[in-house]
Amino acid sequence: MKKMITAHVISIGDEILFGQTLDTNSHFLAVEFAKISIELIQISAVQDKKKRIRNEILSSPADIIITTGGLGPTRDDKTKYVLSQITGKALELNDQALKWTQDYFENTVKRPMNKLNRNQALVPIGTIPLHNKMGTAPGLWTEFGKKILICLPGVPHEMKFLMKNEILPRLIERFDPIFIFHEFVQTYNIAESELAEILTQFEKNLPDHLSLAYLPHGKRIRLRITGHGDDSQRLKNEIQEQIEILISLIPAMNFLSRGTLSLTELTATALKEKNLEIATAESFTAGKIAEELTTESGSSVYFKAGIVAYSPEMKEKLLQVPQSLIQEKGVASAEVALAMAHGARNICHSDIGISSTGVAGPNPDSFGTPPGVAFIAIVSDEKEKVYSFHFPELERIPFTKKCTDLAIQKLYDFLR
Amino acid sequence: MKKMITAHVISIGDEILFGQTLDTNSHFLAVEFAKISIELIQISAVQDKKKRIRNEILSSPADIIITTGGLGPTRDDKTKYVLSQITGKALELNDQALKWTQDYFENTVKRPMNKLNRNQALVPIGTIPLHNKMGTAPGLWTEFGKKILICLPGVPHEMKFLMKNEILPRLIERFDPIFIFHEFVQTYNIAESELAEILTQFEKNLPDHLSLAYLPHGKRIRLRITGHGDDSQRLKNEIQEQIEILISLIPAMNFLSRGTLSLTELTATALKEKNLEIATAESFTAGKIAEELTTESGSSVYFKAGIVAYSPEMKEKLLQVPQSLIQEKGVASAEVALAMAHGARNICHSDIGISSTGVAGPNPDSFGTPPGVAFIAIVSDEKEKVYSFHFPELERIPFTKKCTDLAIQKLYDFLR
Repeated sequence: MKKMITAHVISIGDEILFGQTLDTNSHFLAVEFAKISIELIQISAVQDKKKRIRNEILSSPADIIITTGGLGPTRDDKTKYVLSQITGKALELNDQALKWTQDYFENTVKRPMNKLNRNQALVPIGTIPLHNKMGTAPGLWTEFGKKILICLPGVPHEMKFLMKNEILPRLIERFDPIFIFHEFVQTYNIAESELAEILTQFEKNLPDHLSLAYLPHGKRIRLRITGHGDDSQRLKNEIQEQIEILISLIPAMNFLSRGTLSLTELTATALKEKNLEIATAESFTAGKIAEELTTESGSSVYFKAGIVAYSPEMKEKLLQVPQSLIQEKGVASAEVALAMAHGARNICHSDIGISSTGVAGPNPDSFGTPPGVAFIAIVSDEKEKVYSFHFPELERIPFTKKCTDLAIQKLYDFLR
Repeated sequence: MKKMITAHVISIGDEILFGQTLDTNSHFLAVEFAKISIELIQISAVQDKKKRIRNEILSSPADIIITTGGLGPTRDDKTKYVLSQITGKALELNDQALKWTQDYFENTVKRPMNKLNRNQALVPIGTIPLHNKMGTAPGLWTEFGKKILICLPGVPHEMKFLMKNEILPRLIERFDPIFIFHEFVQTYNIAESELAEILTQFEKNLPDHLSLAYLPHGKRIRLRITGHGDDSQRLKNEIQEQIEILISLIPAMNFLSRGTLSLTELTATALKEKNLEIATAESFTAGKIAEELTTESGSSVYFKAGIVAYSPEMKEKLLQVPQSLIQEKGVASAEVALAMAHGARNICHSDIGISSTGVAGPNPDSFGTPPGVAFIAIVSDEKEKVYSFHFPELERIPFTKKCTDLAIQKLYDFLR
């Protein structure tokens, strides 16, 4: 009989808490648990201290506890010792795990293993080692009380390999969790509070096993309907019905899309549908716009080419921007932005040209234009548009990121 | 008198646990706490449920508890109600907070406030509202028992604004934490276990208030020495002494750098020092290499230009790659990679040309080359190098990322 199964992800490592490493492992695991309807109720990052790790594991209310990190060969790796404490079982050299490590060294590392690598085959008695074909630390699976405790290495590709090949198959076979489904609708250019006012009654009317959430992303808001139930088809239908009602309530001009497609994905789709080719001419964004436009597979259908012309000299040489114009208007100007976009379009024989020019800083450019000034131009054979922005408060990286996002946003509006 | 001050960051939001949002707020806060030597002992992501939020706050051992998220105007925002429960104080309309929200609407949103926005000015009695100039939800500061509880909105730029302008100044004034310093040394092309064997004795000899950590990043390992102490200069000196010993123990060929500079930063430095200019010719990496090379400010000194030539046609037009060569060898080939690199170098009159060509997939290219095949070429007037890779297991995005990293790595070796 189906029941709710809960999980708790614990990332072990001072580097996360010192702000030296961004924890992306937890996000990957969250995505994987969502796929099999296991409800992740908490993610924790804790220090490399036995006491902190043990407390977090023992105080967890979840059915499944999965740790990442602390399985390496060095002294700052403590997970296995905690596992031994919790299970009350001593560490012993596990022949199976030792064989795996030996094979890995013979076939992959191609150097003799040392004592520290041998120690990676130490496993608490009764704990099941899991074959990590990507590295030297085996995964670990143990059960205490009614709980399952899984320990994975922190190196992302090793952790992912074990999750996909060893953990998920076991969990799917073992549990029959109730279904958790999500559906999304995206809005555009409407404030969260405005939307919430429109949807107050809709939300009140939702049945208990369905819930609405607001996820703002800049000018977009993702509306998520989440449902719990043990009849897959029925639940999907119920959510679909509510999605239809939701869409009918959103002002047409503010409706962006069903699902969670990003503006980049929506723009790529629009280019394909309209059968248009595009070329980029970038200065300070230095390839970011081209990169955005090519994240989708099949982008070669609509992405013709991109030119990153950093210096005024290169803008003339590669994009046919007259030096006279640059001298007269300055390299960060609406006129130069337009000339760059036209240049890219002409040279690459594309339908659309998009350009960026500006000053990423930290210093003003040679024309005295201050950091944070940016121009984005978009041209086709029917129309040309140029947009100017000023973000004096943003540093180099966030500034280029922001302007790249705006370029895609404006391109989407241009195509819409 | 100095003492250890601890903090606990709690991110509130189902979207993180469903794997729909990567939590970057916690990372930002971790970096800020590290700067002022407040020891972050845990990061937690919890569900939008009052009970879960309350339990996590009440069970925290930290001196300072800081939450992000759940302060919005909608029904799925519950943080303030939890705060009211914990402090045992009712919510009341806070005149100061209301004024801020009104001003924000008048000056920024430029539309009348609705009831939901008014509710954002509800604050538990005795809790101090903090002026959020970036949005409609004020930050909140309250104290219960010996603890400080701070609640910030989840929208990153609002959270960052409040942390920098309202929270950090108060914490710095209030506390005098013992110093926590870190110094790094980076190694290259040596396995963690090999390194650990070399450093066993060094680590044993470290005084108790200093610790060594291993942070592997691909072919790099960051060695971190962390020290705690109340005499700033003395602690810095002690760490420096140990860093010198550490470096003396690392085989010269495996020593990469002091500090944490990435390979991109080290490459940028090498280009500047050698006074070399570079141009990029990219196919499937589509601007990623150019973007990497321009992340550093002052990159215009060494970055000449970049060309993203996706189609064979564009490779000929923009990079002077003979169609005959493409037809003969295939677009994903060592020969074409070299021709592209030379093309970029000639057209842009740069000292160095670097190129990428390959198949990102998911499908083979028109020459039947399978996904996962990549060639990177680097040329100067003295030498030319071409590297071939095959990652059949990697999907489109990780594949281009991996090859971009390898391009930078090979460029660094090329310059070294």
